[in-house]
Amino acid sequence: MAKKPSVKKATGKLGILLPGMGAVATTVIAGVHAVNAGKSQPIGSLTQMGRLRIGKRTGGTKKPLIKEVVPIQDLKKVVFGGWDLFDDNVYEAASHAQVLDQNLLDSLKRPLSKIKPMKAVFNKNYVKRLDGKHVKRGKTKMALAKQIMKDIENFKKDNKCNRVVMVWCGSTEIYIEESAVHQTVASLEKGMKENHKDIAPSMLYAYAAIKMGIPYANGAPNLSCDVPALVELAKETGSPIAGKDFKTGQTLMKTILAPGLKARALGIEGWFSTNILGNRDGAVLDDPDNFKTKEVSKMGVLDQILEPKLYPELYKDLYHKVRINYYPPRGDAKEGWDNIDIRGWLNYPMQIKVDFLCRDSILAAPIVLDLALFLDLAKRADMSGIQEWLSFYLKSPQAGKGLQPEHDIFKQLAKLENTLRHMVGEDLINHLGLDYYEN
Amino acid sequence: MAKKPSVKKATGKLGILLPGMGAVATTVIAGVHAVNAGKSQPIGSLTQMGRLRIGKRTGGTKKPLIKEVVPIQDLKKVVFGGWDLFDDNVYEAASHAQVLDQNLLDSLKRPLSKIKPMKAVFNKNYVKRLDGKHVKRGKTKMALAKQIMKDIENFKKDNKCNRVVMVWCGSTEIYIEESAVHQTVASLEKGMKENHKDIAPSMLYAYAAIKMGIPYANGAPNLSCDVPALVELAKETGSPIAGKDFKTGQTLMKTILAPGLKARALGIEGWFSTNILGNRDGAVLDDPDNFKTKEVSKMGVLDQILEPKLYPELYKDLYHKVRINYYPPRGDAKEGWDNIDIRGWLNYPMQIKVDFLCRDSILAAPIVLDLALFLDLAKRADMSGIQEWLSFYLKSPQAGKGLQPEHDIFKQLAKLENTLRHMVGEDLINHLGLDYYEN
Amino acid sequence: MAKKPSVKKATGKLGILLPGMGAVATTVIAGVHAVNAGKSQPIGSLTQMGRLRIGKRTGGTKKPLIKEVVPIQDLKKVVFGGWDLFDDNVYEAASHAQVLDQNLLDSLKRPLSKIKPMKAVFNKNYVKRLDGKHVKRGKTKMALAKQIMKDIENFKKDNKCNRVVMVWCGSTEIYIEESAVHQTVASLEKGMKENHKDIAPSMLYAYAAIKMGIPYANGAPNLSCDVPALVELAKETGSPIAGKDFKTGQTLMKTILAPGLKARALGIEGWFSTNILGNRDGAVLDDPDNFKTKEVSKMGVLDQILEPKLYPELYKDLYHKVRINYYPPRGDAKEGWDNIDIRGWLNYPMQIKVDFLCRDSILAAPIVLDLALFLDLAKRADMSGIQEWLSFYLKSPQAGKGLQPEHDIFKQLAKLENTLRHMVGEDLINHLGLDYYEN
Amino acid sequence: MAKKPSVKKATGKLGILLPGMGAVATTVIAGVHAVNAGKSQPIGSLTQMGRLRIGKRTGGTKKPLIKEVVPIQDLKKVVFGGWDLFDDNVYEAASHAQVLDQNLLDSLKRPLSKIKPMKAVFNKNYVKRLDGKHVKRGKTKMALAKQIMKDIENFKKDNKCNRVVMVWCGSTEIYIEESAVHQTVASLEKGMKENHKDIAPSMLYAYAAIKMGIPYANGAPNLSCDVPALVELAKETGSPIAGKDFKTGQTLMKTILAPGLKARALGIEGWFSTNILGNRDGAVLDDPDNFKTKEVSKMGVLDQILEPKLYPELYKDLYHKVRINYYPPRGDAKEGWDNIDIRGWLNYPMQIKVDFLCRDSILAAPIVLDLALFLDLAKRADMSGIQEWLSFYLKSPQAGKGLQPEHDIFKQLAKLENTLRHMVGEDLINHLGLDYYEN
Repeated sequence: MAKKPSVKKATGKLGILLPGMGAVATTVIAGVHAVNAGKSQPIGSLTQMGRLRIGKRTGGTKKPLIKEVVPIQDLKKVVFGGWDLFDDNVYEAASHAQVLDQNLLDSLKRPLSKIKPMKAVFNKNYVKRLDGKHVKRGKTKMALAKQIMKDIENFKKDNKCNRVVMVWCGSTEIYIEESAVHQTVASLEKGMKENHKDIAPSMLYAYAAIKMGIPYANGAPNLSCDVPALVELAKETGSPIAGKDFKTGQTLMKTILAPGLKARALGIEGWFSTNILGNRDGAVLDDPDNFKTKEVSKMGVLDQILEPKLYPELYKDLYHKVRINYYPPRGDAKEGWDNIDIRGWLNYPMQIKVDFLCRDSILAAPIVLDLALFLDLAKRADMSGIQEWLSFYLKSPQAGKGLQPEHDIFKQLAKLENTLRHMVGEDLINHLGLDYYEN
Repeated sequence: MAKKPSVKKATGKLGILLPGMGAVATTVIAGVHAVNAGKSQPIGSLTQMGRLRIGKRTGGTKKPLIKEVVPIQDLKKVVFGGWDLFDDNVYEAASHAQVLDQNLLDSLKRPLSKIKPMKAVFNKNYVKRLDGKHVKRGKTKMALAKQIMKDIENFKKDNKCNRVVMVWCGSTEIYIEESAVHQTVASLEKGMKENHKDIAPSMLYAYAAIKMGIPYANGAPNLSCDVPALVELAKETGSPIAGKDFKTGQTLMKTILAPGLKARALGIEGWFSTNILGNRDGAVLDDPDNFKTKEVSKMGVLDQILEPKLYPELYKDLYHKVRINYYPPRGDAKEGWDNIDIRGWLNYPMQIKVDFLCRDSILAAPIVLDLALFLDLAKRADMSGIQEWLSFYLKSPQAGKGLQPEHDIFKQLAKLENTLRHMVGEDLINHLGLDYYEN
Repeated sequence: MAKKPSVKKATGKLGILLPGMGAVATTVIAGVHAVNAGKSQPIGSLTQMGRLRIGKRTGGTKKPLIKEVVPIQDLKKVVFGGWDLFDDNVYEAASHAQVLDQNLLDSLKRPLSKIKPMKAVFNKNYVKRLDGKHVKRGKTKMALAKQIMKDIENFKKDNKCNRVVMVWCGSTEIYIEESAVHQTVASLEKGMKENHKDIAPSMLYAYAAIKMGIPYANGAPNLSCDVPALVELAKETGSPIAGKDFKTGQTLMKTILAPGLKARALGIEGWFSTNILGNRDGAVLDDPDNFKTKEVSKMGVLDQILEPKLYPELYKDLYHKVRINYYPPRGDAKEGWDNIDIRGWLNYPMQIKVDFLCRDSILAAPIVLDLALFLDLAKRADMSGIQEWLSFYLKSPQAGKGLQPEHDIFKQLAKLENTLRHMVGEDLINHLGLDYYEN
Repeated sequence: MAKKPSVKKATGKLGILLPGMGAVATTVIAGVHAVNAGKSQPIGSLTQMGRLRIGKRTGGTKKPLIKEVVPIQDLKKVVFGGWDLFDDNVYEAASHAQVLDQNLLDSLKRPLSKIKPMKAVFNKNYVKRLDGKHVKRGKTKMALAKQIMKDIENFKKDNKCNRVVMVWCGSTEIYIEESAVHQTVASLEKGMKENHKDIAPSMLYAYAAIKMGIPYANGAPNLSCDVPALVELAKETGSPIAGKDFKTGQTLMKTILAPGLKARALGIEGWFSTNILGNRDGAVLDDPDNFKTKEVSKMGVLDQILEPKLYPELYKDLYHKVRINYYPPRGDAKEGWDNIDIRGWLNYPMQIKVDFLCRDSILAAPIVLDLALFLDLAKRADMSGIQEWLSFYLKSPQAGKGLQPEHDIFKQLAKLENTLRHMVGEDLINHLGLDYYEN
């Protein structure tokens, strides 16, 4: 059994830095301002609204708020910053994104207008459908990473932050396989100096943060911090990290449904998933190279959950197909339609159709907030490297060497909750409960 | 921590007795014959196809079959019997039910024709849409219960059974509230002698089994064994019991989805569930009194899972509506359509639609088998009274005094799996896993 | 062939009087104001946006706007009035109905606030779930009808209207079968004087209008003008009439799909339709007596379209079920879900599911406008009695004695369009078109 | 008004020749045998089960069967033949296709086994995912066409057929644009002799049939007979023709729904259509070049029906996307899911979702039969060239020079029905019906 960590209090201000200040980032920032102003509620955020069962089920179960159990940073003492390839301030960018009601944004115009993106590290080769002018210049990728580190220092000083975390909210970059350059800190730094093509901008942000001991999470399916070199560096610098790809919409549903069907030993013959969405993310993913990155991230979940090798009669022939379609009429309000062909007793076929009329940024925003605040908590608990207990939020979670990542959202939740209990020395919960029935 | 039970081996033959030999019962019986004949597979059954993780995730996780971990009765040494108000044999009843392919039934005609129902205890007042002539006569309900006990003895002897279990597969009876007569063994027995109207036929079967120390499960939403008197009797006679109402179709989906949405702290404003089905069950439920019983059973799940009192911002206003519609074109192939109105970040609305084209008896059959075999296992482990770890299979599970029943299918599964591990002295699993990340 | 009518011009102001100024009526009124102010568009209205093919398909087909072909009243010269059991003005009632964006309503506050309902003829026995105090008193139903006539005269004078039409936008009343009192003008007037219980308030409005020679349409499934006495009176006074029940949402879809399936000789075994809606209409229909009225209106369409007696192999066994569920989370945004079980070649089964996320009042509003303007056109063309060509807008259209009503929306459209062509002496279109292929 | 043709009787045997004897063709052939043997019904076929209104609606409308009005060939006197690149007989090919129940096929084994395909004209360049050895050899495309003509002659003689028709049931070929070679009979014949690459195999079959005066229909989206050269030839040789692409599944639904929405002047912002299917057709369309041909065929329907140029406020911005996904779990049971984003009164958005669980070959089979029998009827009525009245059955119908093809299925039906009435001198129906209401 792991040793209980000792967790420091959350004092002073926390800076949350977001590379990529588009629909998702501005929805988080405007949302936190709205919540702090008492205009709305942080629905979807466990750090703000979640509760944790402590102790036995009998005698009036105790279920305090998570933030009453572990020391979460106070939302009123959070400041936001970030980088973008467009120079719109957060009010402008949020208005453009058309996610939130314009009346709400107008009521927050003053504070949101003050938040302006720093110049981004951007390279069109990695995101072909975007183009922007608010970008850094630098001879080498290492030079660019150093500019980011300088930005962070300045931000921290200017905003009088006690601590800082970083969460990648930028676009999906093109598909890059892990290669030799990603294996050690030394090879990675050499590659950065030599402008190695396998080092995409998101990796420079990850490097900059981790190098400085800053917690880092990655909301897109790019490699970013998911390479041995950065895991090693994170351990060295004491940085907790969590990647990759926010688990929203269709994959969220998939990691809810698949464990449910498997729990009952129902066979699955086919799973067809299609998405329609019309925001910038949809436009980026309309390019096959960028879609590849997302597809790989989305495809893995069923295999790990269903274990076709262990259950060949049930899942060996599962045909899994994922499609993403750019469909402008919807804007940010994406829709995921799933058809699942299942098999029951004596192999009789049945079907499940799920139509999820969701909202991309609305589902992602509380994840950004939770990842930032939980990573900051981990940092204060002296936890570093991969935070597997945050897999709960991620489509393609990182796992330690030799371990399969866990995709089942209910096992992820058990892991998250028991980690929180463990941090404060409470009994872990395993749902045996036979003692309630003994005399 | 509860003490590890010592589990006896599964020797000799096991008799599975099914009151109500309609679509569900005949689908189980024909299915077990088909599986034993190598014609098909027992998909959906954990006792036959499920696996259990034992030990750590590293170094080639061990995931043996459940039946390799605990001693489950061999399917080849199972015999079936039961009662019905029609005198069709199992071949005839299965053909009439039109669940299974007639070619398959024809290939099993000889063994299935031999299984003939015993005369049922039936009373039209409790199931208004049915009528049958293959019924017992008796002056009092106690007399009828004694006839059932006599039947069981004869069955056991005739079939040379070592042990017997009983699983109610009959129709949903009219709604009856728990009342004084149900409180103690004494009051119940008195009531049976006086033909108390709150004692429905299904309760006589439950009484008969439990009185004889025979495990009993209830697949319908009737009270049956879910009254203090029978829980008390079960403890006295050492009978494990599990009730009530097989969790199939729409409620199965609900207890998969609701925990998933709650895990993410998403609000739910409305949940509208409608069903169309055309089998005998659908006809019975077309009567408002019988529907009431089913409705109460179906309505409870969301409240327990979502805990609106603890999470008023998320679930206080949840409007939950369940409809069942008799729709003959579908026969046994029922369809459940759910509309779920959810709320995310800053209260933005989203919607989920689930259309489940399922098959009633195909989903229920493996539950009957698992409940029978797990209850027999429990009996051999000297476990008696309510088996909360079998909640996994039930729409409206019984729980101990002072405990809320657990509806979340993933907590139910953790409970079931950790109970099995506990039976054989293996480490329980809580998904903390921090040790994998420590040096 | 019918003789071409001579159509008078649309001069002066037209008053549109709406009994029942709730969600539907206020959506029409606010909408017409918005359109006249250039703030929005009258989508869904044929009189405003529809076009009509005139002449041959070759040589640049002519498809002028309908209002360029026949003299439709100018929308700028329309004034609205009405009756309601609440005394909210149209601005207040529209705000309460929550159909239209509050910003839009606020921008129209001045003109909408000026429109105040006259006191309604209301009787709780006919609409059990409603109650209001803004109601007329009168000893007999005849006396109440006369008060309505007086209101109309005053309205016409106060608003300097050249002509007036009336469209019932009130709630669905309880189910009343046509009986002796409805057979002749004499029996009806006698019944009104004697307060016959089979004469509901909506019939008094119809009587008042028709007696005065004013065109009358009925948007609810109540009998209203659909009785021999009022058809007779309409002929006598030269009033065009159209009833009953606006064809929106699910029935609209049904009369689109059913003709399509029948066109291809596909069989239909079952059609299950369920609705969820949360507005006042939903609350009223939650009462079984009021639902009965609506159900009868909704059920008829399939029989007339599919003709099971002529096509027994295809439609004899069609099981048609309609459900309406009050579901407050949705408000006016109702949803209709249909499951259709069809049969193709050699009787193979297939299924169609339609989920229509619609808006009740948004679909009804342009129908109110079109019925008002087309009835006014009919009046100016000296057409009186049942206007079968307006069946297009109605769930349960009236037809002449000895005629089946036509439900197929495409035949209804052909009838409407050819009636317009006929009014102005243009060639009717029958889609033969063989002449294009002859030398 | 076109002159009424004089229609010859249907004497002797009719041969129906089908190039491409896969799932669709074998489903037609087996189906006709099953129907003739009294084992099943020709559901979906107008020639067999359709009725036609004759005369007025009053006084007991006459609605005889179509085949009682016009002389349709007796189904018992139909013989089938065809060509395929595999040499399986019809029993084998139908068994392989897994569309029809094997029990039914087994009961028809003898007659079906006797029908063996002639060697096909096939070229892998035009259908990349298929390959077969049962193919003709020939130096030029003209030589191949002549071999087909020889086959036809032999078939006719061997089977003692009085008349013959041909319906293309082969796969979708790669996309080819109409070019110079397709303009005149002379240029086409020259191209055939010179093996011009723009002349695909399906065009050789069309040429062969039309050259011989044989009616020809094309069930795939290939050009085939849809070029000026073959239209000219058809006129010369007196051959009625009909192309192209059987209207089944999703496009069928689209041409039902789109006219319905337009009838009501509802706006459409987006229409997203996705398909999953797992038969050979799905595999062929998984190749982008072949999908292109199908996509062009599927995309045209909305534009023609909705006329965005005439209705810019309603349809100008319509975003239409069609996807076809190869998904083996379904086999021939394809599924089409449509999402339609519509706009109503004042531009308020609504949505329609349609999920069509259909069967490809079951929907196509009666179309093959009807096209064959109606083309034979046309031939006997001395009608030649494009038969626009058969547009009803086609996704991408041919129209005369200077005419837009008609896609609205209800206008197509009116055209078909009035053409039949016209053939026998009955009054055409235009649904005016004002005379019923005149005194």
